[in-house]
Amino acid sequence: MPIQFEIVAQDKVTRARAGLLHTPHGAVETPVFMPVGTGGTVKGMRQEDLETLGVQILLANTYHLYLRPGHELIRDAGGLHRFMAWPRPILTDSGGFQVMSLKPLGRVTEDGVWFRSHLDGSAHFLSPERAVEIQLALGADIIMTLDECVEYPASRETLHRAVSLTTRWAERAKRAFASGSGFGIGDLDSEPPTANPEFRAPNPALFGIVQGGTDKDLRRQSAEALLDLDFEGYALGGLSVGEPKSEMYDVAEFTAELLPRERPRYLMGVGTPEDLVECVARGIDLFDCVLPTRNARNACAFTSEGKVILKNARYARDERPLDPACTCAVCRRYSRHYLRHLFVSGEMLGAILATHHNLHFYLDTMRKIRQSLLLGEFAEFHARVRAGP
Amino acid sequence: MPIQFEIVAQDKVTRARAGLLHTPHGAVETPVFMPVGTGGTVKGMRQEDLETLGVQILLANTYHLYLRPGHELIRDAGGLHRFMAWPRPILTDSGGFQVMSLKPLGRVTEDGVWFRSHLDGSAHFLSPERAVEIQLALGADIIMTLDECVEYPASRETLHRAVSLTTRWAERAKRAFASGSGFGIGDLDSEPPTANPEFRAPNPALFGIVQGGTDKDLRRQSAEALLDLDFEGYALGGLSVGEPKSEMYDVAEFTAELLPRERPRYLMGVGTPEDLVECVARGIDLFDCVLPTRNARNACAFTSEGKVILKNARYARDERPLDPACTCAVCRRYSRHYLRHLFVSGEMLGAILATHHNLHFYLDTMRKIRQSLLLGEFAEFHARVRAGP
Repeated sequence: MPIQFEIVAQDKVTRARAGLLHTPHGAVETPVFMPVGTGGTVKGMRQEDLETLGVQILLANTYHLYLRPGHELIRDAGGLHRFMAWPRPILTDSGGFQVMSLKPLGRVTEDGVWFRSHLDGSAHFLSPERAVEIQLALGADIIMTLDECVEYPASRETLHRAVSLTTRWAERAKRAFASGSGFGIGDLDSEPPTANPEFRAPNPALFGIVQGGTDKDLRRQSAEALLDLDFEGYALGGLSVGEPKSEMYDVAEFTAELLPRERPRYLMGVGTPEDLVECVARGIDLFDCVLPTRNARNACAFTSEGKVILKNARYARDERPLDPACTCAVCRRYSRHYLRHLFVSGEMLGAILATHHNLHFYLDTMRKIRQSLLLGEFAEFHARVRAGP
Repeated sequence: MPIQFEIVAQDKVTRARAGLLHTPHGAVETPVFMPVGTGGTVKGMRQEDLETLGVQILLANTYHLYLRPGHELIRDAGGLHRFMAWPRPILTDSGGFQVMSLKPLGRVTEDGVWFRSHLDGSAHFLSPERAVEIQLALGADIIMTLDECVEYPASRETLHRAVSLTTRWAERAKRAFASGSGFGIGDLDSEPPTANPEFRAPNPALFGIVQGGTDKDLRRQSAEALLDLDFEGYALGGLSVGEPKSEMYDVAEFTAELLPRERPRYLMGVGTPEDLVECVARGIDLFDCVLPTRNARNACAFTSEGKVILKNARYARDERPLDPACTCAVCRRYSRHYLRHLFVSGEMLGAILATHHNLHFYLDTMRKIRQSLLLGEFAEFHARVRAGP
C-alpha cells in the first residue's frame, strides 16, 4: 500500500477524528491543512520557512504545472519533490477544476475536456487517463481522479449527469492507474519512463471524488459508485462553490458518513478557520484552500481577534503585533504599522509576512484541533471557536 | 563620540584596510557592504534572513521614508530601527540624490531643493537643515549631509558650482546638527521631541560628502573644505554616474588619499563585486549599491562563474545549483531550472531566492576581502579576483 491511514483518536460527541496518514514521503498528522503551492511554490514562501511553520503536506496544481514548466520536464528533473526542493508529501489535483473554470474555453465531452491554455491560447485535452499520467509524472504522493465539478446552483439533471460522468471517469482513472506503472498511459503521447536515475515513482495513492452538489441522493449514488471502485481515499468535491454555509456543512457531514471510516476524507477547497473546525467535527481529515495565502497577498490577515485588513488607516500608528495572541515569527518581530506601510508601499515583504502569519494561523488551528482530539477535549474547543473571538 | 573607527589591519601593498566601526547599534566590521533598504525593507528579504546572511548595516533612503510613511510617523514609532524591527546599524542618505534625479521636478537653489513627490505630485522643500532634521527623526546611526550630485559628463564650471554649494550646505548641515538635539531644527516645521518614551535618539554620526566629478583639483578643494569642518566620516559622492570605470577607480583612489586615515570612507552607490575589491584596494571602507538586489529581481545572479541570467532557456533543464561554489541557503537547496521556472512564471519566490543569493555573494566577497586583510593575504586575493572566474 502506498499510503496507510491510522485513526489515533475519535471524538465521542462528534465525528471528528485524529489520524496518521503514512505516505511515501513520510507521515502526516490529520486533520491537516494543505497550503496551496499552485505552480510549485506557495507564493512568497520559501520551502525552508514552510518546513519551519510545520507544513506537513502541500497541494500543487496539475493544470499549472502541466502548462509550465511541463510535467515531462518535472519528471526528468526527478519529480516535483526534487524539482521544488520539498521533501515532504505532496498532493496534486487532477487539473479538472481549473480546466472547467476556464469558460468558455473548457468543453466537456465523454472522453475528457478540451481546453485552451490561459498562457498562450494553445489547445489541450485532458482525459481521466491523461490526468493520471500527468500526475504520475509529477510524482505526487496522493493524486486525484478527473471529475466534473458543477457550479452552484445547478439543476438535478445537470448534477446527475456530472455524477454519472465523474463515476465513469473514476473507473477509467482507476484502470489507467492500475495498468500503467505511470508512464506511457496517455492517449496523446507515450513517453518512456524517465532516464533520470534520481526519479523514483513514489507509488502514490489515488483518491476518488464524490460529486452531487447539495443533492443528498446524488451524493449517495456518487459515493456508492466510488466505493465499489475501492479508492485509497475519498474527496468531497463540488462544495464551497456558492451554496449557503449551513448547506455545505450539512452535505459534508452527510457525505463523510457514507465513506468508510478507515479511509482518509478530503474536503476540497475549504475554507475559513471556522470551516476547518466545523468540518473536522463532521469527519473530514484533509483540507486545502487558497484563502490564507491569497488573502495575505491582499493584506487581509486571520487573527485570534478576527480579520485584520492591514491597509486600513486605523493601523497607520498601531504598534501592536498583527495578532497579540500569536506566537509566529511575524507577530514576535513586526508591528501592524510596519506591515501597513509595506502594503501601502507595494513592498513584497508585506505579502511575505502576512502569508507566513496566515499559514501559521491555519496550521496552529489544526494543531489545536488535533491536540484537543488527543486529549478528548474537542467538544470544548469546538464550543470555544463557535463562541467567536 | 557617537561612532568610533579602529583600523585593525592595513595592507602593505595597497591602501586596503580592515576596521571596526563602532556605532550606537553595535560594531560593524569593515570593509562592509550595505544592502539598500529603500523604503524600510530590502525588497523581498525578511529582517531575520538579513541577520542570518550576516548583514551588519543597512542603508535606507530618506527621500522615500520622508514621503511614506513620513519621518514623524517613524520618529513616533520609536525610530526606524524599531519601526522596521532591525536592531543593527542603519545609515540614511540625505535624500538629495533622489530629489535631484527627479528631473524636471527637482530645482536646486542656494537654500535647498524644491521637488515634487513621485507619489502624488505634492511640492516639498529639502534644505541641508531639513535633511538633518528628517534623518534625526528616522534615528539612523550614520546620517549624510545634503550635497549636489552632478551628472557625468559635466563642465568644470558646473562641477565647481556644485562643489561650492556642497561645501556651504555641509557647513549648514554641520551647524544644524551641532545646535539641535535633533528636533525642532527644521525650516518648515518644528516638532517637539517625540512623546514616545521608546525613542532614544541614537546620537548619530554625520558624514560629509566630497564632490568634484572626475576633476582632481575640485576633488581636492571639496575634500579640504570638508576636512576643515571635521566630519566623523567622509563619503565619495558623484562617482559611478557614467564615467569610465578606470576613471572611477582613479578618482576614488585620489580622493581617498586626501581623507584622514583614521576616519571611515564611504563610496556611495558602488558597485559590482569587482568594484568592491578594487575600491577596497584604494582605501574605501563602506559601500552601498542596488545592484545585487535590483539585478536579483530581474533574474540576474552574481556567481563565482560570472553573471547568470536565470530566464535564459539554457537553464530550463539545468539542475545544478545557481552557483555550485556557493554555500548560501539558496544554492544548498534549489536548482537553476526551478529558479528559472519561478522567474518565467512571475513567482515572487524567484526574486526572494535570487536576492538572498546575490546578497550572500556580496557579503561573502566582503568577508573574504576582510579575512585576507587580517591574514596579510589581500594582494593574492586581489590578484585572483582580477584574473577572473
